[in-house]
Amino acid sequence: MENKEISQAVIARLPRYFRYLGELKDEGIERISSQELSDIMKVTASQIRQDFNNFGGFGQQGYGYKVEYLYEEIGRILGLDMTHNLIIIGAGNLGQALANYMNFERRGFLFRGIFDNNPALYGKRIREMEVRPMEEMESFVRENHIDIAVLTIPKTGARAVAERLVDNGIRGIWNFAHIDLNVPKEIQVENVHLSDSLMKLAYNINRFEQEGGI
Amino acid sequence: MENKEISQAVIARLPRYFRYLGELKDEGIERISSQELSDIMKVTASQIRQDFNNFGGFGQQGYGYKVEYLYEEIGRILGLDMTHNLIIIGAGNLGQALANYMNFERRGFLFRGIFDNNPALYGKRIREMEVRPMEEMESFVRENHIDIAVLTIPKTGARAVAERLVDNGIRGIWNFAHIDLNVPKEIQVENVHLSDSLMKLAYNINRFEQEGGI
Repeated sequence: MENKEISQAVIARLPRYFRYLGELKDEGIERISSQELSDIMKVTASQIRQDFNNFGGFGQQGYGYKVEYLYEEIGRILGLDMTHNLIIIGAGNLGQALANYMNFERRGFLFRGIFDNNPALYGKRIREMEVRPMEEMESFVRENHIDIAVLTIPKTGARAVAERLVDNGIRGIWNFAHIDLNVPKEIQVENVHLSDSLMKLAYNINRFEQEGGI
Repeated sequence: MENKEISQAVIARLPRYFRYLGELKDEGIERISSQELSDIMKVTASQIRQDFNNFGGFGQQGYGYKVEYLYEEIGRILGLDMTHNLIIIGAGNLGQALANYMNFERRGFLFRGIFDNNPALYGKRIREMEVRPMEEMESFVRENHIDIAVLTIPKTGARAVAERLVDNGIRGIWNFAHIDLNVPKEIQVENVHLSDSLMKLAYNINRFEQEGGI
């Protein structure tokens, strides 16, 4: 219940802490101070302490944090000790890339199926999974207790597909379609709008040039 | 010079405005008030006015904004009237997906080449471009005035590759490697940490469950 107060900004930073702590752990580092973590992560030590205080603090300041303990605690907070059944909607290049690319299984994300509305792709095997027709999506979601759908389809139709997923019990959508979805607020959506990201990069390059930066 | 004051938060919202205005334009809508825009974009009207004031306001409140004018102005601010030469480093699934996936050419992002260190891929054609060995990357960047590199390689080696790109004049990196890069601050970096995004989604799903949300 306490978690309710935690802002999305803090939550958005958790995976990054998790990533850095994983690297420290792999390097065999056992303890780290908030100042050292601050130096490598390029956020202020006070930000780190504030963020961690949302979850009870994780250990004594001054003496530093135990890397492995902190890594495991943040993993637990992120729910990486649980499993999620995941399907991909859209077996185009991006959908195939995500299916193949992810070693997400070890984070508890279990790839259960991939769907497309292009008959030419039906039956094609992608990471040992045959592409299924979209018509089978609803029953598949229900029968296989699918939690997460990854949307890698064009923006046309994305909202309608999201609605069908929601009606059949999906709990989260990882949305790569270039459109914001309209779903009930109990459905979690995480957008990856790739073209927005690339445009922001271009803007920053142009601005830097115009200011005579170099 | 005025642009200097504009925060990254405002900049991050520009592509989203651009996207919505493009849709309105396609629907033939000529004028829109900040309140109407607020309703469809689910941000406050005051936020919209504040954001637009960073760029001179774009028209009269009350009377509404001219959709096409606003769309073009924001496009111009984003630098979409300019072109950028772009290469992809890493011809794995994700690199190939990005090369094929993007109709970014019409936004001024020109796909110039794709590189990999796997000899099995050399010469393979991806969107009419042969995969080149990594050894050719530096000279290619210099000789073809490449502005943007898309990094779709594993985290091991990503920092070293980024350094080589920077040394040869790259201005921006669109980083899909699961690691934060250390580059001089005049080099623009836009990170797409896919696993961070998926973890955040899982966290929000889990939290909602624990709170007995449904």
